[in-house]
Amino acid sequence: MRNFRFACPTEFLFGKDTEQNVGAEVKKYGKKVLVHYGGGHIRKNGLYDRVMESLKEAGLEITELGGVKANPDIGLVREGIELCKKEEVEVILAVGGGSVIDSAKAIGIGVYYEGDVWDFFLKKVPVEKMMPLGVVLTIPATGSEASNTTVVTNSENGCLKRALSHSCLRPDFAVMNPELTYSLPAYQTAAGGVDIMSHVLERYFTREPDCELTDRLCEAVLRTMIKQLPVVLEEPENYGARAEVMWAGTIAHNGILGTGRSEDWGSHMLGHELSAFYDMTHGATLAIMIPCWMEYVYQTDIARFVKYAVDVWGVENDVFRPEKTALEGIHKTREFFRALGMPVSFADAGIGADRIEEMAENCTRFGAVGGFVKLEKEDCVRIYQTAVS
Amino acid sequence: MRNFRFACPTEFLFGKDTEQNVGAEVKKYGKKVLVHYGGGHIRKNGLYDRVMESLKEAGLEITELGGVKANPDIGLVREGIELCKKEEVEVILAVGGGSVIDSAKAIGIGVYYEGDVWDFFLKKVPVEKMMPLGVVLTIPATGSEASNTTVVTNSENGCLKRALSHSCLRPDFAVMNPELTYSLPAYQTAAGGVDIMSHVLERYFTREPDCELTDRLCEAVLRTMIKQLPVVLEEPENYGARAEVMWAGTIAHNGILGTGRSEDWGSHMLGHELSAFYDMTHGATLAIMIPCWMEYVYQTDIARFVKYAVDVWGVENDVFRPEKTALEGIHKTREFFRALGMPVSFADAGIGADRIEEMAENCTRFGAVGGFVKLEKEDCVRIYQTAVS
Repeated sequence: MRNFRFACPTEFLFGKDTEQNVGAEVKKYGKKVLVHYGGGHIRKNGLYDRVMESLKEAGLEITELGGVKANPDIGLVREGIELCKKEEVEVILAVGGGSVIDSAKAIGIGVYYEGDVWDFFLKKVPVEKMMPLGVVLTIPATGSEASNTTVVTNSENGCLKRALSHSCLRPDFAVMNPELTYSLPAYQTAAGGVDIMSHVLERYFTREPDCELTDRLCEAVLRTMIKQLPVVLEEPENYGARAEVMWAGTIAHNGILGTGRSEDWGSHMLGHELSAFYDMTHGATLAIMIPCWMEYVYQTDIARFVKYAVDVWGVENDVFRPEKTALEGIHKTREFFRALGMPVSFADAGIGADRIEEMAENCTRFGAVGGFVKLEKEDCVRIYQTAVS
Repeated sequence: MRNFRFACPTEFLFGKDTEQNVGAEVKKYGKKVLVHYGGGHIRKNGLYDRVMESLKEAGLEITELGGVKANPDIGLVREGIELCKKEEVEVILAVGGGSVIDSAKAIGIGVYYEGDVWDFFLKKVPVEKMMPLGVVLTIPATGSEASNTTVVTNSENGCLKRALSHSCLRPDFAVMNPELTYSLPAYQTAAGGVDIMSHVLERYFTREPDCELTDRLCEAVLRTMIKQLPVVLEEPENYGARAEVMWAGTIAHNGILGTGRSEDWGSHMLGHELSAFYDMTHGATLAIMIPCWMEYVYQTDIARFVKYAVDVWGVENDVFRPEKTALEGIHKTREFFRALGMPVSFADAGIGADRIEEMAENCTRFGAVGGFVKLEKEDCVRIYQTAVS
């Protein structure tokens, strides 16, 4: 086990009706709140009204900023920063999924900086602190409700999507009511589910040999997702299954599953280019790239892929043919994603092979990617090629 | 899944040599530190010197209070409170195992109260805040390095052992170097291991039907312990195994395994009386009581005990004879504890059956105990009777 430093101070208020007390939670951090959200969905389903009512009941002064889109843009972040400064906001409440939370995180650090907030993402200046941030989570996927990361896009000069990590980026609290996810479309539910599984898989494939506990914890989350994700697609209003997926999404990415081990993140890097070039949903890019990545790298550590097949997918361990066992695990991964309605190839996603070189170039523009296997540009080209059809 | 509120803000600094930077961590919370510890062990193995050196390097003003014993006494806690007030201590550093940490927690709350600190344990006054507290952990067992609980004993009027729980009782940080546990005697290692497993088992046996994720997480920790505990007894200086046990001990009791579910704690209550009446090691009392408790209650939920047997102990599931499968899991539990060198009966522990009535009376003095099955006095008598030989 490797040395590590870990803390996840976020407080979780999980369960039915929990959003109805969000005002009291926000009030612990200040009187002037910026409510940050996306589009009309939360207005249609009544969540907006319930949150506003609770905030007003708590006597809070409310400023609003809606309009966050998928792949949250630095433009709106800048607007939020100005608003916070003008209104002397003391605490931000993000109501939505990962994009809204990430946008709120960027606002929360930008408020304390005189220069342009994009400087943080360019690593020109170090992050030091974030304004108090609460979350009402509506989509289990990115894990941003407890993670130390924010991903923001700058579309001004080409499309730059940049991630930033710092311990201060963890929200102070997250209100998580699984009922709020009942109305998520099947595609978004499935894509979110793949994203959750990917956060575990990026940690599961490690070069650290001694990590039994975190291996087992990873397997616990993956097996739960494998069981519950088809249930929520079949029965969108199954509270128990929605609750399992929602809590799994937090544990998958709050960092506990990475304690003491190296991680990979190659599939994420490969997938990010698909998002950047074709505006694909993050989870869908992962459904395509993860099995292709696995097929490309499994021979470097057959034993781990055998363990994955057996302990995650319940594949019978053919001890005389480990490669067969390993491949069966990868096969099951892809078929699972396919059965969820996710694309598992470029063809499924309706995209061609013509920009593979460009994507591979971009993917490795800062050097090789991936901690399990270092992927150079040529590796990325080959992996993308296996994803074509 | 039940509604829950959960946060564990403790920061973990885990790994080799981590205690050598403890001064810099303490300094974040204040300049005047009370170093609280037990007996001579940390002086003999050099830990005391390394900690003191790091604190001095950080320029801290040090006050010391040693002498914490197993089942930490309220007397020393009061002494610590006076010392903190007199020396205007700003942060406490507990160097030791659960007793030292629990004693430090009690000091940390007592400092802010004008009356007698025992009032908190009598629930006469509510806990509100605790002085900043850091830990250098030397024994993986109680989980106190991250838990919201302290257990203190008052030996003035009979022997009263009282627990207190509050979110403010979680330490701010915990330095965890598995090497510090190399020198633990086998008996203490085993008893600590049983304690760790018990913290999971008390949560595993739940009446909440929908809790797949936490079931699996519990199983992950239990199976890790089942594999690694015999390794550390066989090879006390096996870093990897010591690290697994140490980190498992924290996850077992930081509360995450109880999220969304009811818990039991009947075995703990039964065991506490053995400690009170015979001054037995906590882990040893659990090794006796847990299998006996299981045998007494398993028929109320055969399915869960079948799951326990199969998913924790790898018992083959005899689907036509679930009771046989369930009993095999309980049998394996007891044999595992026995193989660790723990007592599994009163006879093993050298105690008789003569105080069973008294213990059962005491155990239920505030009413029935246990969340999985409510145990009245007569139930406790019967369980104790099965433990005699």
